[in-house]
Amino acid sequence: MGSIAVAEQLARKQRAISVSEFFERNKHILGFDSPTRALLTSVKEAVDNALDACQEVGVLPDILVHLERVDAEEYRLMVEDNGPGIVKRQVSKVFGKLLYGSRFHTWSQTRGQQGLGISGAILYGQITTGRPAVVLSKTSQDDVAYRVELLIDTKKNKPQIVRQEFKVWDKHSGTRVEIYLRGRYVQGKQSVMEYLRDTAIVNPNARITFLSPDGQRVVFERASTKLPKPPVEVKPHPRGLELGILLRMAKESPARKLTSFLQTEFSRISSRVAKAICRQACVREDLRPKSLKLQEAKAILEAFQKVKIMAPPTDCLSPIGELLIRKGLRNVVESLRPEFYCPPITRPPSVYGGHPFQVEVGIVYGGNLPADQSVEILRYANRVPLLYQQGSCACTKAVEGLDWRRYGVEQRGGRGIPRGPMIILIHVCSTKVPFTSEAKEAIAAIPEIIGDITLALREGGRRLKSHMNRRVKKAKTEEKFEIVRTLLPRMAEKSAAIVRRPIPDITKTIAKIMNVVWIDEQVDYERGRHKARIEVHNYTPTSKRFNLHAIVPLGALDSSSLDPKPSEIRPDGKLSWRLPRIATTTNSIITYALRGLRKEEYEEVEPFVSGISATQVVGAEPLPGDWDLGLEEVQEEEFMAKYDTEGEVLAGD
Amino acid sequence: MGSIAVAEQLARKQRAISVSEFFERNKHILGFDSPTRALLTSVKEAVDNALDACQEVGVLPDILVHLERVDAEEYRLMVEDNGPGIVKRQVSKVFGKLLYGSRFHTWSQTRGQQGLGISGAILYGQITTGRPAVVLSKTSQDDVAYRVELLIDTKKNKPQIVRQEFKVWDKHSGTRVEIYLRGRYVQGKQSVMEYLRDTAIVNPNARITFLSPDGQRVVFERASTKLPKPPVEVKPHPRGLELGILLRMAKESPARKLTSFLQTEFSRISSRVAKAICRQACVREDLRPKSLKLQEAKAILEAFQKVKIMAPPTDCLSPIGELLIRKGLRNVVESLRPEFYCPPITRPPSVYGGHPFQVEVGIVYGGNLPADQSVEILRYANRVPLLYQQGSCACTKAVEGLDWRRYGVEQRGGRGIPRGPMIILIHVCSTKVPFTSEAKEAIAAIPEIIGDITLALREGGRRLKSHMNRRVKKAKTEEKFEIVRTLLPRMAEKSAAIVRRPIPDITKTIAKIMNVVWIDEQVDYERGRHKARIEVHNYTPTSKRFNLHAIVPLGALDSSSLDPKPSEIRPDGKLSWRLPRIATTTNSIITYALRGLRKEEYEEVEPFVSGISATQVVGAEPLPGDWDLGLEEVQEEEFMAKYDTEGEVLAGD
Repeated sequence: MGSIAVAEQLARKQRAISVSEFFERNKHILGFDSPTRALLTSVKEAVDNALDACQEVGVLPDILVHLERVDAEEYRLMVEDNGPGIVKRQVSKVFGKLLYGSRFHTWSQTRGQQGLGISGAILYGQITTGRPAVVLSKTSQDDVAYRVELLIDTKKNKPQIVRQEFKVWDKHSGTRVEIYLRGRYVQGKQSVMEYLRDTAIVNPNARITFLSPDGQRVVFERASTKLPKPPVEVKPHPRGLELGILLRMAKESPARKLTSFLQTEFSRISSRVAKAICRQACVREDLRPKSLKLQEAKAILEAFQKVKIMAPPTDCLSPIGELLIRKGLRNVVESLRPEFYCPPITRPPSVYGGHPFQVEVGIVYGGNLPADQSVEILRYANRVPLLYQQGSCACTKAVEGLDWRRYGVEQRGGRGIPRGPMIILIHVCSTKVPFTSEAKEAIAAIPEIIGDITLALREGGRRLKSHMNRRVKKAKTEEKFEIVRTLLPRMAEKSAAIVRRPIPDITKTIAKIMNVVWIDEQVDYERGRHKARIEVHNYTPTSKRFNLHAIVPLGALDSSSLDPKPSEIRPDGKLSWRLPRIATTTNSIITYALRGLRKEEYEEVEPFVSGISATQVVGAEPLPGDWDLGLEEVQEEEFMAKYDTEGEVLAGD
Repeated sequence: MGSIAVAEQLARKQRAISVSEFFERNKHILGFDSPTRALLTSVKEAVDNALDACQEVGVLPDILVHLERVDAEEYRLMVEDNGPGIVKRQVSKVFGKLLYGSRFHTWSQTRGQQGLGISGAILYGQITTGRPAVVLSKTSQDDVAYRVELLIDTKKNKPQIVRQEFKVWDKHSGTRVEIYLRGRYVQGKQSVMEYLRDTAIVNPNARITFLSPDGQRVVFERASTKLPKPPVEVKPHPRGLELGILLRMAKESPARKLTSFLQTEFSRISSRVAKAICRQACVREDLRPKSLKLQEAKAILEAFQKVKIMAPPTDCLSPIGELLIRKGLRNVVESLRPEFYCPPITRPPSVYGGHPFQVEVGIVYGGNLPADQSVEILRYANRVPLLYQQGSCACTKAVEGLDWRRYGVEQRGGRGIPRGPMIILIHVCSTKVPFTSEAKEAIAAIPEIIGDITLALREGGRRLKSHMNRRVKKAKTEEKFEIVRTLLPRMAEKSAAIVRRPIPDITKTIAKIMNVVWIDEQVDYERGRHKARIEVHNYTPTSKRFNLHAIVPLGALDSSSLDPKPSEIRPDGKLSWRLPRIATTTNSIITYALRGLRKEEYEEVEPFVSGISATQVVGAEPLPGDWDLGLEEVQEEEFMAKYDTEGEVLAGD
């Protein structure tokens, strides 16, 4: 066969593939690679859709998930929501056409974004059982619901309606989807139950009722009746925008002038900033966007980096929050009584390729968590638990890339998943989470996102180490204390008895021997009120003066309870006290109260000290260098310089 | 805002997304998540295409890859092949439309299959640099080449031709593609150089010339001038077919009768088998395929499992082969002088979801390979090296799921990537490799594929352990031998001198002390000829009779060289000798020769024994239970029973 024939023969074979055909052949890419995973993926897509629908209209989600076994490996999945419903003319397209949806062109934090999820599940059901999906939907405007049985015509990527009718449905509004599919129902890890439980935790205003194939009825009751915050749409942020995208946006924009194009199509570009950009880029302000040239676009992109532009707005992001992170972790560790709940870390919002994103991290450690295995990583993206593809996720890569040995956690060679009694929860929310595939189970290794997760993990590691240090140091000193405090008085007593003299006061002698500043913290909770108490004991032979710092949730702080008043209250909740001079063997006490928090939201004060040698202090860590003290830091250092030597002067004994 | 408004408002937002728009927004899914990876992915897609093109027409690939730095992070990539070229009317669609190609609907082992690869790279280039791609193509029929500059209209997923012309091109036929893109050029792991080197190894008939951005010119010269085997197309195999797919195929088939539908649309269904299927399924043979009902289709699927159907044809698969696996490994380990090259394992072809596939595994161990880190895994799919997404690949999952401790390899808890001086190469070839995403860097966790990889790894582990056992046992015994052989004669000498008697023959005494059968093997290579020699020394005090086995590449065996002739030669190359009785302190020698192999293709004889207690043998392992001996095994056991006790009779000393 000559090459002429081949080129022609190939040409005759060349043709377009519909996106449905592509996924019919590659269903594993959508998350349908084994019956177990396929069942979970289907539930997930339907529930994510249901939650998104309720969030759109701002109602408390009330979701029913009914899974019934039809045959050895055939299940019937039914998911019903109380969302706004879908208008009749759109129903079959939303469910029967891949890459069709309402959320692709809007930039907002929703679970579904691709228009592939639920239609993918329907396609999978059709491939494996040959049966049509049934959708029932009603908007509040309709008297009756619209019911349609549909298949997907994969050659054309179009819904093929098998049957349609109107039906009475005793519901204000909502949608119900019913899919027959091949699956395997399992318990434990990566199960439907685990997914629903994890989902309920981070969506506390949702009630999720699950009727399982084995006849169980499990209700994940809502823990809060706070209405879901409707997703806030934003425009792309200029930072990280691609050249080709800028060119396309300019071509498609109806704006007549470059400045108005910049102002209307991007977030954080005011008229002033738009002008500054044009000036920086040496491009005319009244240039027609449609005629933007490659070189001009390049110059504008460079100007985006040079001109000062505000960080992306954060109201479009909805992090899980410290409370729910704690709850999520608590729920997983259940009865394992971990020793330490690291205060959850919430990073400030950041941006990649024009999309705002935000990272949260929670860590628990110790107790009865299994010590001789890899640490567990719980991953969430836009409040959806990720149960598969851990290996290729940015979350995992960040954990693996960090040298955990620095924080006292076992890790061979300082790379890879560390080992030990630890669980790490990571949540990434964004107006566009960059998943590695359409199965949406792993976040792509975008450098900005890995970077931010790493920073949060570092902070968590630091807090963990600081806790461990305090604990170890305290335990050691406590032992010494015990000996000194029981032994010395007895010796003094005995000696006094022998020489028949009064028993001497040996407190100062003890202080000389111990030579530490001992800091104790305690948090009590009673009826919505946390009372925190920090006791500073000077068990050194000299008087001491230094600074003490702690972080509090500022919104909950009862200012009137602060005793003494701190010298400094920063907007991020960092409090600093310049302690009064504490004479040898005396103490100083700080108390304050918090209101309106749950018990688990504040369990431990994490005190820091400055202006004193850290080796002399037990129960607090030195102030970390990365505390963003700004101007205050300098003042404090001056303060330290002034008092440091004075503090060291012997107070005479 | 009421829910009426919301449903309507959502409806107005709902619309179709073109596949180009989807990937414009999700370019990381195609493998473009960081500049480093994006550059590699682009090179990979272009080179895979070039190799496929040459394979189609059966010419020796001569491929030029030219990478030039244009700007800080902007590169110009140019890849040229000597394939059949593309006819003019198809050029712009092949390169400027996603999901367009010639290989999606054919079932054959090609590198590209999705119609997403090269057009994805062009889309990425356009997004990041705004510049059009340039394609030059000429078929052998054309006098001049067709040159086109094109962009992709993402809204419509259509090529947008910027400029086109005809150009003189001094080439018989071929295609050249030129893309400007953002990238980062790195050295070492996951680099363009590594990819090209690994590609060259498993495509030995290709010459790949690389002009690197730093001005290097590297030629990977072809190691073989064997023409590439054109891809063989097959029809789906009935095993593992999905119900929905069967229904669709029946609907679309032009066949009038069910039996002819089955015969024409599937591989391995003869007229006889088709009838048997209909009978088993209780479906009429002359049923019109178009009117096939769900229940009938189900019954046919079940019949596919029950009726005996031949395994899928294997001529559509093109494994790498033992030689190239060795070469590939050798190339990676270079100067690390590993101690042991495990003979590569090639599994028989298998099938998943109707697609034939085949697994090959190679292992090297020891020497100067780094001992204190995770073992290295080299993954290939259809002769393409996979450099990213290791964590989520079926290859990795199979390695992690095996308990390597059984084979003497370090692995904490018997799960996860083992540690030690080992490299594992895994190749999966198939008419359809199920990748986890369009980036084609990881194979999905399809149970059948993981299962087959696991079987191959187990066999490799077993061979490794058998080698280690032999080595350890030999080393230990050798030590003992040294002592006995030097000490005893001297003692005999001394004693004889003292009592003035002649020195006694203590050979039998030595045998009594050693009490082992010692097997030595040696392979010498000279001018295309391997000479293998197995020496069996009986260092026991009794005579011994047992069986010795070895595997040889039968095609290379010089039958006339076999001395003595084996009692059994099996078609898979397993040879068995019933050894003659070996008297105490005597030996028996087996030799044979192989012709036409390269030196590295046969480096070590792996001898096995049966009919003797394994604890008495040093230098050979007991015959594994999974050797498929069939009938012969029984005879052999009878043989054993007959001679075993006899062998134990003292031969008198």
